[in-house]
Parts: sequence; C-alpha cells; structure tokens
Amino acid sequence: MPPSVWRMTPEAMTVNYTAVRQGLDSVLVDFLREKLNSLPDSRLENLIDHLCEFVIHGGKRLRPLLCYYGWETVEEAGERTSVLRAAASLELFHAFALIHDDIMDASAMRRGRPTLHKALGVNDAILLGDIALVWHDEMLHASGVDPQRLIAVRSVVEAMRAEALYGQQLDLLATGGAKDDLDLATTVVRYKTAKYTVERPLHVGAALAGGGPEVLRSCTAYALPIGEAFQLRDDVLGVFGHPDVTGKSAVEDLREGKVTVLIATALSLADTKQIELLNRLLGNPELDESGAERVRELLVDTGALKHVEDMIRRRREEGLAALEAAPFRPEAVAALREIAYATTERVS
Amino acid sequence: MPPSVWRMTPEAMTVNYTAVRQGLDSVLVDFLREKLNSLPDSRLENLIDHLCEFVIHGGKRLRPLLCYYGWETVEEAGERTSVLRAAASLELFHAFALIHDDIMDASAMRRGRPTLHKALGVNDAILLGDIALVWHDEMLHASGVDPQRLIAVRSVVEAMRAEALYGQQLDLLATGGAKDDLDLATTVVRYKTAKYTVERPLHVGAALAGGGPEVLRSCTAYALPIGEAFQLRDDVLGVFGHPDVTGKSAVEDLREGKVTVLIATALSLADTKQIELLNRLLGNPELDESGAERVRELLVDTGALKHVEDMIRRRREEGLAALEAAPFRPEAVAALREIAYATTERVS
Repeated sequence: MPPSVWRMTPEAMTVNYTAVRQGLDSVLVDFLREKLNSLPDSRLENLIDHLCEFVIHGGKRLRPLLCYYGWETVEEAGERTSVLRAAASLELFHAFALIHDDIMDASAMRRGRPTLHKALGVNDAILLGDIALVWHDEMLHASGVDPQRLIAVRSVVEAMRAEALYGQQLDLLATGGAKDDLDLATTVVRYKTAKYTVERPLHVGAALAGGGPEVLRSCTAYALPIGEAFQLRDDVLGVFGHPDVTGKSAVEDLREGKVTVLIATALSLADTKQIELLNRLLGNPELDESGAERVRELLVDTGALKHVEDMIRRRREEGLAALEAAPFRPEAVAALREIAYATTERVS
Repeated sequence: MPPSVWRMTPEAMTVNYTAVRQGLDSVLVDFLREKLNSLPDSRLENLIDHLCEFVIHGGKRLRPLLCYYGWETVEEAGERTSVLRAAASLELFHAFALIHDDIMDASAMRRGRPTLHKALGVNDAILLGDIALVWHDEMLHASGVDPQRLIAVRSVVEAMRAEALYGQQLDLLATGGAKDDLDLATTVVRYKTAKYTVERPLHVGAALAGGGPEVLRSCTAYALPIGEAFQLRDDVLGVFGHPDVTGKSAVEDLREGKVTVLIATALSLADTKQIELLNRLLGNPELDESGAERVRELLVDTGALKHVEDMIRRRREEGLAALEAAPFRPEAVAALREIAYATTERVS
C-alpha cells in the first residue's frame, strides 16, 4: 500500500499532486495578496497578516484537492485557473472553521503553532474567522467559473457550510455529554468529516464541471466511508499520534473529554473497573502524560483500538470498491484511490 | 420635526412603514421556520431556536428598511416578495454582527435581554453568529431576485460585509487605545454606521432595482452624513439614554473605555484637571452609577455634548439637502426624510 501522499516524494507518486497543490497555493496567495494590498486602512494590516499567514502556512489542502479531483471525475481540469480558485475557496472556509472550532474546543496548538486565539486573544480570532468565511464566499464567486454553473453549485456549497456548522454544534453537545453516546459521536463524524470534508468538496467540483446525479451519487458512495475512516484515523492519532508529527497535543482531546467513536467504543467494551478508571481520567483538565498513557493502555486492553482499526479498514475497502465502480475519468480514480490510502493510513 | 418613526402610530406616519416592516418580518419568519423544520437532527433544535428568537424579537429592521427604500429610489417595490427577501437577508447579517460584536465588547444586554453569550455561553454564541452569517448569504441568493441583478449586487454586498468587519476591527483597536484618538473614532463611525448601516443597504436595494451610478452616488450623498449623525446619536444615548428605553446599559460603554467621538471630543476640550478625572473614570470596570453621573457632568461642562449635538444637526441638514437634490422617486424621498429624523432624534 502506498505511503502517505503528504509524505511522498514527487517521484514516488502516481498522481502529480505537487503541481495541483502548487496551483492551489498560487491562486490562494494571489487572492490574499490582493486583499492585503486593498485594505482601506493601514491599521488593519497587522491583524490581516496573521490570517494570511495562518491560511498559507501548513494545511494539507485536502478539501481543495478533493474539489479539484471532483471536477476531474467529469472532465480534465488541467491548470484552469477558475477551477483552482473555486477549489481553493474551500480552504478559506476551512480556515474559518478551524479558527472558530479551536476557540470553542479551547485548543492550544494547530499546525505545530499556537492557535490564533492563544496568540492573539479570542476577540481577534473570532474576527479573523469571520473574515475568512466572508473571503471564502468572495473567492468562490470571483473564481471566473461560468455563472450558470455557479448557481447550480450554490446548493452544494450551502449544504457543505450547514453540515460543518451543525457538525460543530453536535460536537459541542458531545463534549461534556454522556461519554458512551456512540450515536452522537457517529453523527458528529458523519457531518464534520464524511460530509463536510470529503463528500461536499467532491460534489462542489463535480457540480462545477456539470456532473449529473449519477456522478454525485458515486462521489457520495466513495466519500462517506472514506470520510468516516479518515475521522476515525484522526481520533486514533489524537490520542496515539506524536505531537511533533501531528502538530497537535496528544493529551488535549482526553483532557477535554471529547467523546470520539474510539472513546465511546472503549466505554462500551470496558468492564466496570475499566469504566470507572476511564471516567476518572477522561475530561480531567489536569490529566498529565502518565494519565494519558493509562488511557492509551485501556484503549488497547478493552480492544477498542483494534475495533476502530477494523472499522477503518472496512470503510476504506468499501470506499475503494465504490470508486472502482464509479463512472469517473481514470485520472480522478487514480488520485482518489491514493487519497483514500493517504487519509486513512496517514500518521499526521 | 416628526417624532421617532419607531414610536409613531400608523396614523401619524406619512409613509406606511408598518406594512413594509410586517412584510420584512413575514419573509424572515418564513425563512427561519423553513430552517427549523429542515434541521437534519433534532438535537440541533434547542440552540437554533435561540437564534430564531434573537432575530425575530426586537430590532428596528433599519437596514432592511433602507434596502427596501433603496429599491424604491428606482422603482416601486410594493409587496414584491423577492425584494422583501433580499432586504430581510441584511437583518440576518446584522444578527451575526451583533452576536459576535457583543462577545468582543463583553456586552451584557442587547434589546433589553441578556446577550446570547451571557445566556448561552461564548461557544454557542460564536456558532449562532456563524450560522446567521451563512443564512444571510443563503437568503440573499434564494430571494428570487433576477440572477443577473444578483451578480451585479454582489460587489455591493461584499463591500458591506468588509466594512462591517473592518469597522469592528478598528473598533477593537479603539477600545483600550488612546482615548483622544479622534481620527480612529471617526473612522470607526464611518465604517460601522455610515457605510455599513446606511449607505450599503441603500446601495444593495438600488443595485437590485438596476439603479445606475448616479443613483448610487446620490444614495451616498444622503447616507454618509445621516449615518454619521445616527452613530453620534447612538454614542450620546449610550451614555445619556435610559436603559429601559434603549435596552442597553448606560454605564457599559464608559466602563469599557470605548473611545467614541463624544469621549474624544470631551478629552480634546477638557482642561488638565478634567482630563485627569476623565482618564480615571473611563475604562474603569468598577465604575458605578455615581461615577457615570460625574462623566456625564464632564461631557456637559467641557461643551462636548453641545459640540456633538451640533455635529448631529449639521450632518442631518447635509443629508436632507442631498436627498432633496437626488433623482429618487418621491415615495423614497418621503421615507428617507422620515428615517433621517427618526435615526438622529430617536431616544432608543
């Protein structure tokens, strides 16, 4: 199985992601530079600089890449600037979602740096998130995509936005809620990752290229299981990943008492003594590394980690099977196959 | 001079605002009900209810009214649902701006009730603001307005959004900054009220009706002085208004050390002893009602209140003169004349 796409050298890749990512970064930089250069008051520059830096520095560009290959399921995108711009606009929406989610989750680190609210304070972070959301909308509409196509794509974009926001709302309910609420944890995964991160970016791209209902359905058949597997991998890395590699703390999710599928599964498999211990450790804001290590042991001992790894593998297989049956152009199939592995086997 | 439009009985009004406001409320309620009825998960209802309640309860609908009459500068709007919907979408943007601004300003009261972040916590308030912003965009695009007109209006809407956000950013810089920075205080007024609240809603309406550059310029000539006068009146009411009437505390702005034109003017007119006293009182989080009363006396004694009342009157006259010279339909002129008085003489 191929290694993580994000860690591949250009030579090792079947699909040339580097060129697409460079194209996406280039249109993002152009848009942000234009924004910086047209600020109506020089006193705004300092703060806006922080937003531009946040967007440009780091990030895998997963949603724009999926949007780009969503277009390529229907027709060749090549270096078409309008497609790159529409796809890159999703990165600005994602910057908004990350900045605000980090405030709500009280996260201290993001992409290996202090989160914006830690660095600048909550007020500036709220405002920069708002600006990123408004810019996302502007960049999409100014992408140069055919206006008729843009009208068609709005319902998909609106669904994407709603799923991200409703997913976050359910996530807030899950944090501090009943720790074994597997249904709620699963619903959060469905909205925040399966739909918002994977399905909708593909739909946006396919709709922009004029893809019909059959193409959109095939995107969904691939996206939902792959998206779930991606989030399950993320949950595992949130506890077992190395902070130097993930850029995030491996204790924070546990301190916060975040009810992930991994945690809910452990609680449903645990015996009375293990449940008592888990309930004592999870959501304790003082939890240290040795406490986190005990949680990790419990996740292994209850069989929860193995169970979740099985879930990831089954979902990846389901998504890949749907991909082989989809009426997509072969370039898109090749790219989406690699992305399926990269997102579910990745270490960061 | 006519009394406040918001307090007029239907009989006393030349212009029938009640019908327009009812029309605006009706399309807002329809939109929100549709949103509530189509939530993908019943666990979302409770929080979304709070947002709907916030939007529907209270608020003068000033921006939608101005948008409606912006349309009427060009042609009769009547009860055209598409115009009402496009206009009402500005109220959802404004709900977003109020909810997030209240968090940033740590405001406790809004429209006579606890602010959303006081009632629900900061996390839910951030999220509800985000949802209001996304809904604003949806309601505008689903208004039923001709798609070609909608494309033309986007640049105006984008300018409005940017001005609201940049205005808030400058406002944050002003709070806790140099208290006599009259230039910064004036710039905040220009963005947050003159442009965001008055000029852009008129522009949105006029552009939706196909108004050309001359109409837009005339809207600006009316809007900027009236908008400034409106904000100056708001600053005066923020210190001298009665909380039962304004729905806001008359001490909060002072405790916060908000640098309004009124405050900056007082500091520029004050003698050394008065400056020392003002600097001691302003921005003191412990300031009580008797301390607030001393500030009010200083605002009167320095001549700042009289100076600002003169500024308000001059700007109103300037706006009204521009209105009489504008190439607007007479119904729009009558309505905008009344709004000019209502917003600059109002007591709440």
